[in-house]
Order: sequence, then C-alpha cells, then structure tokens
Amino acid sequence: MAKAPASTLDNVIALAKKRGFVFPAGDIYGGTRSAWDYGPLGVELKENIKRQWWRTFVQSRGDMVGLDSSIILPRRVWEASGHVETFTDPLVECKKCHSRFREDHLIEAFEAKKGRAPEGGVAEIACPSCGTRGEFTEPQQFSGLMKTYLGAVDNESGLHYLRPETAQGIFVNFLNVVTAARQKPPFGIGQVGKAFRNEITPGNFIFRTREFEQMEIEYFTPPEQADEFFRTWVEDCWNWFVDLGISPENLRRFDVPEDERAHYSAGTIDLEYRFGFQGSEWGELMGIANRTDFDLSSHTEASGTKMQYFDQAANERYTPYVIEPSFGLTRSMMAFLVEAYAEDEAPNTKGGVDVRTVLKLDPRLAPVKAAVLPLSKSADLVPQAESLASELRGFWNVDVDTSQAIGRRYRRQDEIGTPFCITVDFDTAEDQAVTIRERDTMAQERVALSQVRGYLAERFAGA
Amino acid sequence: MAKAPASTLDNVIALAKKRGFVFPAGDIYGGTRSAWDYGPLGVELKENIKRQWWRTFVQSRGDMVGLDSSIILPRRVWEASGHVETFTDPLVECKKCHSRFREDHLIEAFEAKKGRAPEGGVAEIACPSCGTRGEFTEPQQFSGLMKTYLGAVDNESGLHYLRPETAQGIFVNFLNVVTAARQKPPFGIGQVGKAFRNEITPGNFIFRTREFEQMEIEYFTPPEQADEFFRTWVEDCWNWFVDLGISPENLRRFDVPEDERAHYSAGTIDLEYRFGFQGSEWGELMGIANRTDFDLSSHTEASGTKMQYFDQAANERYTPYVIEPSFGLTRSMMAFLVEAYAEDEAPNTKGGVDVRTVLKLDPRLAPVKAAVLPLSKSADLVPQAESLASELRGFWNVDVDTSQAIGRRYRRQDEIGTPFCITVDFDTAEDQAVTIRERDTMAQERVALSQVRGYLAERFAGA
Repeated sequence: MAKAPASTLDNVIALAKKRGFVFPAGDIYGGTRSAWDYGPLGVELKENIKRQWWRTFVQSRGDMVGLDSSIILPRRVWEASGHVETFTDPLVECKKCHSRFREDHLIEAFEAKKGRAPEGGVAEIACPSCGTRGEFTEPQQFSGLMKTYLGAVDNESGLHYLRPETAQGIFVNFLNVVTAARQKPPFGIGQVGKAFRNEITPGNFIFRTREFEQMEIEYFTPPEQADEFFRTWVEDCWNWFVDLGISPENLRRFDVPEDERAHYSAGTIDLEYRFGFQGSEWGELMGIANRTDFDLSSHTEASGTKMQYFDQAANERYTPYVIEPSFGLTRSMMAFLVEAYAEDEAPNTKGGVDVRTVLKLDPRLAPVKAAVLPLSKSADLVPQAESLASELRGFWNVDVDTSQAIGRRYRRQDEIGTPFCITVDFDTAEDQAVTIRERDTMAQERVALSQVRGYLAERFAGA
Repeated sequence: MAKAPASTLDNVIALAKKRGFVFPAGDIYGGTRSAWDYGPLGVELKENIKRQWWRTFVQSRGDMVGLDSSIILPRRVWEASGHVETFTDPLVECKKCHSRFREDHLIEAFEAKKGRAPEGGVAEIACPSCGTRGEFTEPQQFSGLMKTYLGAVDNESGLHYLRPETAQGIFVNFLNVVTAARQKPPFGIGQVGKAFRNEITPGNFIFRTREFEQMEIEYFTPPEQADEFFRTWVEDCWNWFVDLGISPENLRRFDVPEDERAHYSAGTIDLEYRFGFQGSEWGELMGIANRTDFDLSSHTEASGTKMQYFDQAANERYTPYVIEPSFGLTRSMMAFLVEAYAEDEAPNTKGGVDVRTVLKLDPRLAPVKAAVLPLSKSADLVPQAESLASELRGFWNVDVDTSQAIGRRYRRQDEIGTPFCITVDFDTAEDQAVTIRERDTMAQERVALSQVRGYLAERFAGA
C-alpha cells in the first residue's frame, strides 16, 4: 500500500521538532503530554509574535495600556468570575481503574475505530486505560481549573487556582489602572502571559495544551458603543494576521451560536485558521467576545468594591461593557508556521534543480534575521564573518554558520526562514563587499561592508 | 515625636504604587500577599529589562542560545534534581490553630520586640495567629515546592510541581539543544520566566514573593574550564548592572560560605544590592553558582538518558560542568528603581525653585521614551501633537499628555523617568519645530519636526 503523502501540518511538526522550534516538555521522563518547550528558534519566533502584537495593539494606540498580572489568584476571584461553577466538563469514571474520560470522546473514538455508533452507549465501550468493558459511572462534572496551595497552613484556606485565562487579572485591576494611568472608557488593557487548563485530551501538537500562552485585550467601553467596538475589533484582529502573512483564504469567521458560547458572552466571533487537521481542517485561532458588564458586575458584587467608571462630564456612574479579543499565542505561532511552510525548487551546483523547503515567514517574525556565511573555513574568512556578525548583533538576531558546503547552508537557513544570507568570500578582503542572498527570490546582490547594516535596517523597519 | 524621614525605599514603593508600576495582586479581595501585578508602567519597565538582558546575554553572543520551557514539570524531574528532598524549611505548628511558622523567625520577632532572647525558646512565645502561648510542635520539614494535579485521574499519579527555578527546564533539554541547535561546550542556554516558591514569609515589596520571574543562564563547559568561566560570568553580570546605571558603590560581591550554599553548588558568589532595607541594607540581587555536573549526572541516573557531550576531536565523552548566573528579574527591577530615584530642584514659574522627584532611569529602560505635550488644549495643538506621537509610536513607547499646566506635566513625566518631553507650542505651525526637554539636565532645544525621529533614534540606539 502506498504511504499517504505527508500533509503540510505533518511536515511543519517534523521540521519544528528537528530544528528545535519545539520539544515535548520533560521528554527524558516520558513527557508530560501537557506542554511543549520552545527551543532556540521557537523562543525567538514566539517573542517576535509577542512583540508585534504588543506594538500594534498596546504601544501604537493611544487608547491602550499594558498589564502583567499574577498567574495564581485567590479562590474568590474564580468564584466571582463563574469559573469555579461553570468551567467544567462532564466525565465518566471507570469503576475498575478510576481513570476518567469525556463520554463524548469515548463515543467518538469508538465510532472512528468501528465505523458505527456504539449501540448501548458507553456500556459497549472498553476502558482505554485498563480494558474493562462498560464499567463506567454516570457522567460527573470535572473542573478544568488547576489547584495549588499557598502558605504554611496545610488546608483549604490556602487553596488558590492557576488562572485559566489572563482576563480576570485585568478585571480585578480595572480601578487601579483607571486611577494610576488616568484612563477613561473607551480604553483597553492588553496582557500577554501563561494560562493553565486541565484539558482532558490535550493534543494536536501545540494546539491544545494544559499550559499555554494568551495575548488578551479587555476593552472597556460605554455600553452603547459595545456593538460598534465589537465590529472594529474583529476587523483589527483579522487585519493583524493578514498583515503578518496569513492568507485570507486560510482564515474565516465563525459566529459562535448562543448555546456554545462561554457563560459570560453575549456574542462571540472566532477567527479560525485552516491548520489542516485530520477530519475538520479548521481550528480556532482566537475569539472576540462581548463580555458585557458580566465580569465587572460580578466582582463588584463579590468584593464590595464598585468596579464602575464615573463620567464627570455626564455626571454619571456606570459599569462599562467589555469587548475581549483573546489570542492564542502558541496557536498563532502554529498558524504562522503552517502558512509559511513551502517547498519549491532551487538551483543546484550541477546546473539542475533540487527541491528545497523554505519557511516564508514575514521578516519581522523570522527567528534569525540574517546568517553570515564564510565561503570557506579558510582562516581569513571566518574572523571577517565574525566581525560583521558582531556588528549586526547589536540590532538583530544574527547567526554565523561555518559548517558544510554553501548550498547546504543556504538550505538550512531557508528551512528556518532566515530572510538574508550574507556570504563572505575570497574577494571580500579586496573589494570590502559581501554577497547578500534573499530567501524567497534567491536573488543575490553585492553590497559594500559599510552598507550592510543600512541594507538590513531598511528591510527590517519595525522588526 | 518627629516622624522619621521616609527612606528612599519607602519613597520608591509609594511612587511605584501611586503611578501604577505595581499593584498588590488580587487586592479587591484582600490580596494574596504572594505576588504583585505590574501596571502599565511596570510592565514596560520589566519588558525593557528583559529585552536588554536577552540582547546582551543571548542574541549578542555567539556562544548562547535561548529557550522557553514549561512551568509545570513531572515529579520525577524534581526528585532527580534534589528539590523534593532538600527544598524545605523547618516549621513549627501551633497545636491550637494549626498555623505554621519558621522557628527562627518566631525567635527573631520576639527579640526585635522585647530586646532579648526568649529564655525558654518558643515555649515562651505566643502564636502570631491565635495568641496561644508556647503550644508549638517540634519543627518539621515543610516543602517550598508548589503542587498541582494534571489529568483526569484524581490521585497522586497526576502530581506535578510548579518549577521553583527555571534551570531544570534547561537541564532536561540539554541534549535537544545540542542536537537541534548544533551547539558544543562551552556554550550556554538562557531563559526568562516565572518560578514559584511557597515562601513562608513573603515580603519587602517585590523582593520576596511566591510568584516571581527569573532570568537564568546555564553555561555548559568542559570541567577544566569551569573555574575560569565562573570568574568571567561574575564579571559579565556585574558589568551588565553597571552599564544599565547601577552604581558600583551600591553593588557588592558576597562569597557564600559552604554551609549556606544550595545543595548543588560547589561555589556561589551573590551580587548584592543596597536596597536600603531596615536592619541590613543589602539584599541578594542575583547569584552565580558552580553547579558542577550535579544536575546532568542526576538526570542521567534518574532518566537513563546519557546527558553527556561527545567531543569528536578528542574522541571523548564527558559530562559538562555548569556555571549558572541566575538573575531575579523582579529584584533587578526593584534595584533599578531604587537606584534611579532622586529628588532635586527644578525652576518654577515664579522664578524660584521647587523640589522635583525624578527617576533617572537609563533611557533603554525607561517605560515611556518620550511624551508629546501640546502647550495648550487649543484645538490646533492637540492634533499636531497626536500626529507627531503617532509617527514616533512605530518605534518607541510614546505618550501624549494634555491635562494641566506644562510644569505639572514635566513633573509627572520626570517622576516616571521619561527621558524626553516634546512640547508642541503656538510657533510650531509656523516654524515646523518643537521644543525637546531632556529629563536630567532639563535643558531645552528647538528641533525641526522632520528631525524629531532622528533626534530620538540617535539617543535611543539599542533601546
């Protein structure tokens, strides 16, 4: 039987592991299945995405400020937010081995394997963990919140939760920011940080993990302007992805029906990306929700602190509505990788062509901005290359690559999306110039050593 | 009785709270006492410190790469690392209310209050929580690790720990990085991220918190070069702080005696900063440790994976030694704030002088790089100011401040360390120029509108 051709997603995952964008967390101990570690290239790519997001949505806008709140928050925050009560999944438990599963996932797996629905429901299904058939309890609610205990007293008084969303850290600081940063609605607060959810079935590479990163905005607006800002935020988010290279054909809006929305939402539009999963190709990249005054009102009631804004001009106190654009940082990174992955043809030294793999990442996102390649390991060329690299490193992330033939090095840099390769050759000492090769067109240009920094600066404005 | 003059530290803490550098986490619910939230100015300052660190120690060096590993790691990692066994404090428990305390802290507090040692030890001391005298258990070991549970099974098999240091995430990825990023010792891996310790007595503002941020380097070296790299890393770290504005008079080395070192260390030098605490003025800012081959060897033994390097040239396999410069990010931020805080004199409109508060932060660290101030709220000036600000915002974090008199606005910007105030006045429309005022000298200069970006670019190289 012929092997099915690898999908782009498979290729991206293989490349990401091989080149050190991501590693499975704790893999020498069998892995946690819960998270991924970001290697030397992954951490640079992820930081570049964060920086572009922060520049676009926080620093470049007069109506936005930033925040970085703590991961661990008291139980009362999560009681007020509704998470303790509603952030749950119904699970069945195997009576024999006490493993728990989502009933719908058990049924889906059965169907995928047998090609038919289980007639007797889970009574017909074997426990994936111990094999016992049909010995499951009735479904019970299971919390997706992760607990931890703080302080020296070893009882429930120290119970805290790891945040399942960064948003609540913003809501509880609403008054602090209004006062200290002298903000008035409409204005927003942006935050980038880790969040934790005890997913029952993590999977699809970095798409669904128990530890992940979000980039969230809570935009506070007078209630009557909420619908208008909801619309403009959907557009602004869409445009951000497209500006950084996501093709509109691979992006779509999904208007989430009422019965599928989170408990706080009066309206949610997800932006979905064509990740190329098996089954449904599309996956949620981010969501924009109208959280109304749900959170500020809940915290007002629970804390006794009035989370409201007093409009002096109108002599009126009101609770702002909140529009929430919530981005998955790790999902965004996965989308940018899938979008950038390409295979095309490159000339080889025999006058023919080879297939090359190239990550056509936007230069602002590329983890390595330029690679300096001494044409040979001859003693003269390496120090010249090092000296040029160290000049450029004050501004950008620059590699020096000395091993193997120049063609192999081009392939290696193409594969990780390096926009420019700068070759130091035997003429460099004489003409004080280098050859700069552009990643996508593979066009080469001779540039004076003294002009290299300016050449790159022009092409990396905003990177 | 005269009130004691506020110390610089008190002033910095008051300023940081008032202007929104930091807020107590979860304060509308009484706070967690465990962490702080970083407000609009704090998050920018903290990011700028991170960025400078990353540029200096990761991107600018050919022998360093970055990593971002997960916060939650399996129990076996922390068993192998020695943390489960040794990362503990001896605590006594009040038999009445079950609160726990460090015995030495109880005795210290008694001495501070009474001016003498308690003759009968803790038998003489009242429980700080419920007041019962001397009803304490014998000291028992209490773990500083924070637990959480992953997965759907509700028992010890899901037990994981939140990392108390980012370092272990680097060690368990040693082979991944060597292979994927083609590194050979001597080389290092840098990481910035959150860490969690269940401190019994958090305190001193952002100095000791249960949730905090580290910037760590694990530098892998052939064993015979370990001493040499230990020395150069101590120097490199010292120089980094001094280059960013820390005065050498406020910095000192502390050679940690053997019985006070962590279990993995064959030698530790702390850099201490003169924070100005009551009692001892000095506090640990960072430490450089020689961790030998302790961690890689422990993980080799526990995981069965050989965490070694094969040196092809010497045809020799060996376990590298590790030099670890470990920086507290939040402590660094606190040091930069204390160092920058100054009070001096500024001319007022009546021809006299006023005392002004100014944060003399290095421009690379300043949270706001420039403030554009329309001299009056007159309709013409505000749009000119907004237009200039929006041009500059593509490059730097720039504020527009329109409220109150110009002198008040200068004071406000001085107080948060903004290096340049750019005033748009009634001549601007005609001469197409603005007045730029420098924070420390208060010198003013007329600069053409078309030159403002270049003026700032020259002064913010590397920011």
